[in-house]
Amino acid sequence: MDTPGRPLTLDHIGLAVEDLPSAAAELSRRLGVPAGPPERIGADGIEVSFLEMGQQSVELLAPTGPESSIARFLARRGPGIHHVAFRVHDIRSELSRWEELGARLIDVEPRLGSRGRLVAFIHPATENGVLTELVQVQKGSG
Amino acid sequence: MDTPGRPLTLDHIGLAVEDLPSAAAELSRRLGVPAGPPERIGADGIEVSFLEMGQQSVELLAPTGPESSIARFLARRGPGIHHVAFRVHDIRSELSRWEELGARLIDVEPRLGSRGRLVAFIHPATENGVLTELVQVQKGSG
Repeated sequence: MDTPGRPLTLDHIGLAVEDLPSAAAELSRRLGVPAGPPERIGADGIEVSFLEMGQQSVELLAPTGPESSIARFLARRGPGIHHVAFRVHDIRSELSRWEELGARLIDVEPRLGSRGRLVAFIHPATENGVLTELVQVQKGSG
Repeated sequence: MDTPGRPLTLDHIGLAVEDLPSAAAELSRRLGVPAGPPERIGADGIEVSFLEMGQQSVELLAPTGPESSIARFLARRGPGIHHVAFRVHDIRSELSRWEELGARLIDVEPRLGSRGRLVAFIHPATENGVLTELVQVQKGSG
């Protein structure tokens, strides 16, 4: 259990919402933290905002158009938890390790996510129904 | 934002699973932490196990019979995120504060939860579809 880079830690939970400004304002008051500036991720058709609580955060995700995966998520089941993200030190080696443990990778190669981090998603089918994200904080990113 | 006891922090995410020993073993290998001993909560008809990652944890919840809320959750939608828990310093004052902010309380009074903590649940209807738990760690509890 003293493997370098483990145990993993919780990085954030991703929460799909209909209305980003309204949800950000409400959750900000409940948690007692400001909501970060909205960041538009054009490729995914979404807009996100983070509420940072120490080393963890809540990511709010709202669709910017009807074609985004978040729009489909909301249409199918309404607002709710969209994904859970764990922080790793070396995302490439973790992806290999998770795959060896039976995880079905959505992203075989990590890609640039919000806040300048390297991210990769793992299919809920092998993770007890939870869309799972691995996140590597890069030097110089938040 | 310098109110005592705030910001809140993330305490754990609760994950409904079909088979506790199997899910605990798999997630333990992925996260690199041991799964805690199963704790049976007879009143709720469930059995839980925590995987601790620093100050946060994943709680696995499995039904011990067909009448539990977790059994109904699994029947309705399969395994997945069941709730999200935030840690508070004074659960009674936080419950009043959340109620004033529009939260619909399930537990008006905190009750004794697993690991000897005081807990109270808030209805998903006012929390973007997320069953939300407030947790107060009591002196002497884990």
